[in-house]
Amino acid sequence: MKTMKALVWREDGSLALTDRPVPRLFAPEDAVVKVTLSTICTSDLHIVHGAVPRAKPGIVLGHEFVGIVAAAGEAAGGLKPGDRVAANCITFCGDCWFCRQGFINNCEKGGWELGCRIDGCQAEYVRVPFAKQGLTKIPDTVSDEDALFVGDILSSGYFGAQLCAITPGDTVAVIGAGPVGLCAMQCARLFGAGQVIALDMDESRLAVAKKEGFAQVICNPQKENAEDLVRSLTGGRGADGVIEAAGGTNTFELAWRIARPNAVVALVAMYEKEQRLPLPRMYGKNLIFKTGGVDAVHCARLLDLLAAGRLRTGFLITHKGPLNEILEGYRVFEAREEGCLKWAVTPYEL
Amino acid sequence: MKTMKALVWREDGSLALTDRPVPRLFAPEDAVVKVTLSTICTSDLHIVHGAVPRAKPGIVLGHEFVGIVAAAGEAAGGLKPGDRVAANCITFCGDCWFCRQGFINNCEKGGWELGCRIDGCQAEYVRVPFAKQGLTKIPDTVSDEDALFVGDILSSGYFGAQLCAITPGDTVAVIGAGPVGLCAMQCARLFGAGQVIALDMDESRLAVAKKEGFAQVICNPQKENAEDLVRSLTGGRGADGVIEAAGGTNTFELAWRIARPNAVVALVAMYEKEQRLPLPRMYGKNLIFKTGGVDAVHCARLLDLLAAGRLRTGFLITHKGPLNEILEGYRVFEAREEGCLKWAVTPYEL
Amino acid sequence: MKTMKALVWREDGSLALTDRPVPRLFAPEDAVVKVTLSTICTSDLHIVHGAVPRAKPGIVLGHEFVGIVAAAGEAAGGLKPGDRVAANCITFCGDCWFCRQGFINNCEKGGWELGCRIDGCQAEYVRVPFAKQGLTKIPDTVSDEDALFVGDILSSGYFGAQLCAITPGDTVAVIGAGPVGLCAMQCARLFGAGQVIALDMDESRLAVAKKEGFAQVICNPQKENAEDLVRSLTGGRGADGVIEAAGGTNTFELAWRIARPNAVVALVAMYEKEQRLPLPRMYGKNLIFKTGGVDAVHCARLLDLLAAGRLRTGFLITHKGPLNEILEGYRVFEAREEGCLKWAVTPYEL
Amino acid sequence: MKTMKALVWREDGSLALTDRPVPRLFAPEDAVVKVTLSTICTSDLHIVHGAVPRAKPGIVLGHEFVGIVAAAGEAAGGLKPGDRVAANCITFCGDCWFCRQGFINNCEKGGWELGCRIDGCQAEYVRVPFAKQGLTKIPDTVSDEDALFVGDILSSGYFGAQLCAITPGDTVAVIGAGPVGLCAMQCARLFGAGQVIALDMDESRLAVAKKEGFAQVICNPQKENAEDLVRSLTGGRGADGVIEAAGGTNTFELAWRIARPNAVVALVAMYEKEQRLPLPRMYGKNLIFKTGGVDAVHCARLLDLLAAGRLRTGFLITHKGPLNEILEGYRVFEAREEGCLKWAVTPYEL
Repeated sequence: MKTMKALVWREDGSLALTDRPVPRLFAPEDAVVKVTLSTICTSDLHIVHGAVPRAKPGIVLGHEFVGIVAAAGEAAGGLKPGDRVAANCITFCGDCWFCRQGFINNCEKGGWELGCRIDGCQAEYVRVPFAKQGLTKIPDTVSDEDALFVGDILSSGYFGAQLCAITPGDTVAVIGAGPVGLCAMQCARLFGAGQVIALDMDESRLAVAKKEGFAQVICNPQKENAEDLVRSLTGGRGADGVIEAAGGTNTFELAWRIARPNAVVALVAMYEKEQRLPLPRMYGKNLIFKTGGVDAVHCARLLDLLAAGRLRTGFLITHKGPLNEILEGYRVFEAREEGCLKWAVTPYEL
Repeated sequence: MKTMKALVWREDGSLALTDRPVPRLFAPEDAVVKVTLSTICTSDLHIVHGAVPRAKPGIVLGHEFVGIVAAAGEAAGGLKPGDRVAANCITFCGDCWFCRQGFINNCEKGGWELGCRIDGCQAEYVRVPFAKQGLTKIPDTVSDEDALFVGDILSSGYFGAQLCAITPGDTVAVIGAGPVGLCAMQCARLFGAGQVIALDMDESRLAVAKKEGFAQVICNPQKENAEDLVRSLTGGRGADGVIEAAGGTNTFELAWRIARPNAVVALVAMYEKEQRLPLPRMYGKNLIFKTGGVDAVHCARLLDLLAAGRLRTGFLITHKGPLNEILEGYRVFEAREEGCLKWAVTPYEL
Repeated sequence: MKTMKALVWREDGSLALTDRPVPRLFAPEDAVVKVTLSTICTSDLHIVHGAVPRAKPGIVLGHEFVGIVAAAGEAAGGLKPGDRVAANCITFCGDCWFCRQGFINNCEKGGWELGCRIDGCQAEYVRVPFAKQGLTKIPDTVSDEDALFVGDILSSGYFGAQLCAITPGDTVAVIGAGPVGLCAMQCARLFGAGQVIALDMDESRLAVAKKEGFAQVICNPQKENAEDLVRSLTGGRGADGVIEAAGGTNTFELAWRIARPNAVVALVAMYEKEQRLPLPRMYGKNLIFKTGGVDAVHCARLLDLLAAGRLRTGFLITHKGPLNEILEGYRVFEAREEGCLKWAVTPYEL
Repeated sequence: MKTMKALVWREDGSLALTDRPVPRLFAPEDAVVKVTLSTICTSDLHIVHGAVPRAKPGIVLGHEFVGIVAAAGEAAGGLKPGDRVAANCITFCGDCWFCRQGFINNCEKGGWELGCRIDGCQAEYVRVPFAKQGLTKIPDTVSDEDALFVGDILSSGYFGAQLCAITPGDTVAVIGAGPVGLCAMQCARLFGAGQVIALDMDESRLAVAKKEGFAQVICNPQKENAEDLVRSLTGGRGADGVIEAAGGTNTFELAWRIARPNAVVALVAMYEKEQRLPLPRMYGKNLIFKTGGVDAVHCARLLDLLAAGRLRTGFLITHKGPLNEILEGYRVFEAREEGCLKWAVTPYEL
């Protein structure tokens, strides 16, 4: 049996780079992919912290990657060995009632599987179920670095912007300038936002938002009154749309406070705590709260937008190293050392 | 100076049927209306309970009525003495940024004014600001009884159904079978709902929902498991849309529990308490919460629908009496005596 | 080899009830259905008239039917022998780019196949490709008579109403009170139309529209000025939506004339001639023309609506006879003898 | 009586720069504006050609301008002398049924009035009815040159893009690379178009589309097969949206040919001839034709987008001269001499 290197989340909660059998096709819808670039996600940290009850100890972690198809089942939608593909973080059948509505996050046969309930991509190879839905061919003109985030971080940012139902010229506030927030800002611009306001307490992340041209205004709510600032930029009304990509109690409250009446507040963060919804205080403000885990159905569209130069994500890769160094990657990523946004993982080096 | 009878909410919190000067035109946008039929609303009770801080002591109560124009300013949109009109519970200018978007509830010059901050309709006459927006001519074929609820109760029910973005065949659950809830059920059907499920703890109100044909299924959550029932009627998925017209903590929680993933939960009730939003527990369910005070911009449309026989509201009038007896009306309405849904107030009798 | 009776459109253009082999499964997505009720459609007449170039001589005609699954392939979506099913007139894979957008009419592997390019349903048995998409289980409470029209006539009427983007209270004009037009009227009501105006030159069909409650106003354009009538019913503006289900040059022109500015004109008829679009004369009217062959993706939804009693189609069956008499059926249906709307075909009788 | 210079379209069809009385306020909704920059529009040429029946001989031409308020009526929405304003080419009341729906082009009291039925802006001063709707204050950061086109050319381009219902990543084809077409391309990008294909027979205009970055692909249909090109760029399907801004018979046909099934074809050009709609040939393609004169309701939004740097129009001004030289301007503009896109008219010089 052929083996490979893989990062395993062990039953005792620790991480280990160990040897594992190279995965093989199980079902005709499967593909096996040789991972050429992967990355570490905040949700991986949630698993390591023991905060994801549905995660299965003993699995290989990771769900954000690009690679080369090594083997494909006969019902894998025509994928062939050698195809360069981007992966979707969500596993979905494409055929149940929810998938048919575009609500793939609620697929009756899927959900967040890779690196959570089945072996993921922080390894040399990974098996992808329902590969026709879960893998998308990468256009020649799109690099691995740009395609890497299509199926998770970029999809989430796009989802947040889409939920906001932006009309060109709108002012959109994005809370949290991490990877998802930065993608959300960029996508808000893509939908025509006139000005994007980035809010974060991390000045270096705000600086990225500004430098990359995603946000026209940046705000550190610890240093200035965010509500006053947003009102002053919107004729006193508040933001036309708010994307909450931070996930804290303070940020939840900030989100509805800076929204104008009848705005959408898109909650794309993963919250660890329940929140207070003070309906009597917001009566008549007619806010729309859209809660949500990403419905990542637009991977082909996002790859086209990357190919057309309308989106780009390569800037997120602030750090890079081979699979051999992934444990150091986890440490740096979690500590946000040296302005780390994303640590990209290249193949194992002998 | 001519005087009239009027129900006044006095500075000491008590109600009194007293003499007041007949109102006159102030601004060119005003009209003065002779009230031919009015009614008592739950929000009047909120004022009497001291639960509406913005209400001004000393005013005449009431905001739901029909009448005959007695005098009209030159900028009152062509209204003339003798016109039979239905009133909008919201005062709005029709011209500010919010009004232009249809968000009249947030009008920069209006809001809930009548019977809250200025003299209302539980009197013989009432002055209506921005009468062009606030009054709508009643088609000849629509009775006063049916037109009475157009500007408040029926608008609220329509608003709730509209928020749900119903596709024909959808299952819509309505929590609360009071006047707003009953109107919401009827409007959900108008938008094409396949089945409407009414939930309330008051069996007599459920019986009305069923008898009038607004709800196909009724459920008393104290007697049966509402969540199980809704799932059993929807292939296990939950309701496609939920309208929460009750306003309690139990009903708020019930609302998101019986909703299917990606459903709209329309919160059209007035809540007296803040609610808990357990985002971690509902992660991935991707619910949309629409909070809201009614944007009552569709009065002409609703009157047309009443004229066309597609809506009807006369059944809400379970009790009726002249202005002379309005204090008894408040008592019966609040106590819900004898299945009281609405107490209609006819003109003062000498 | 087992044989069955089937109506064949022969190479010489004639029809014949002949013996044919009972069809068998070809592909794993196939099902073979025992036909329990079918009917004759106007498009069958188009084929017989030689007006459908893509039709293949020698095939069995017919594409509108219900039946019992006799055999099902392993990729037929879980269908089993004995399942009672309604058929979709369109064959579609459910998986190509167009199907994923809901544009099944443009499926890369399908289109109008049954009774046009492959053997159809005017027989004892029929093979249905992509059976998972093409067949829908009929709820127990829906009769064969009501389910019969789900996949063609009723889908077309629903499609027309849906294209009109109806807001409750709208006035919708439907040109043509044949089977599709009658279904369109009924569906316009389902979407909330305030009044439906039926226009046809056949008084008996107008009478059906009125009697069934689908149209509130009927109009024979040969006897009265349709444009004046529609304006008089709409405050001088014209119809909010127009569904053209007749397909003539006169009716095309009538359609845009009776539409109000900015209305949708849904062209769901099959035209045999090109039409004149006098853009200079309609400049500024800002009409929206939606041309279309039905995207019949809502069969399950329509069956639910039939089960819920919100739609009904049994009234369309004005005539019925066994497969033995189908040639007489074609004659009566084409001649519209005795007010024939639809001739239903029951199984062959020995 | 004070006089001014004005370009008059005389009863004999000729143009003359003559003396006219300076206009004064008539109605309380009026404003009189000192014109600081105006321009010549193709519709002015239509009038001069005698092709606009509703135009009234003897009027001052022109409807596209910016200026300084000289006098304002009391119902002119708070405009004051000295305000710098951009004009809307459409006169509308903001209050009739059509205006309330956003269909201002069909305003019951307005339409194209300025420079058509009442005196226009190719003069030193112009009276603007319903000035609250017809004039929008220009933000300080937007130059006269950029604001000049807000109320007509840019509104038309935005309207065309909006009609197309663009999803980010879509391929949009724009036929005609004149001023409206160039604005439509730019707005299509604003709505998120992935690639814009510009089609024109004028190579210099195509070069502008490319150089300004509005179109990624340019095509001269006389030199290459446009249908083949569009298909090759869209996976064989055709353009997701088509904006026809040219107005010829060839371009009308080209528009529906290059559209993919179910695309929107937005016809924003003014056609001088009726067109052929070959419905039998396009059956099943399910195209949506949106015919239209611009509903220019988004002037404030467009000015915000100019201020935010998301749109720009200054590049359209290829030629400029004082009112004294306007006859020469008409000649050069009509002949498209020296790549003339727009001739801007500065104030009369003594």
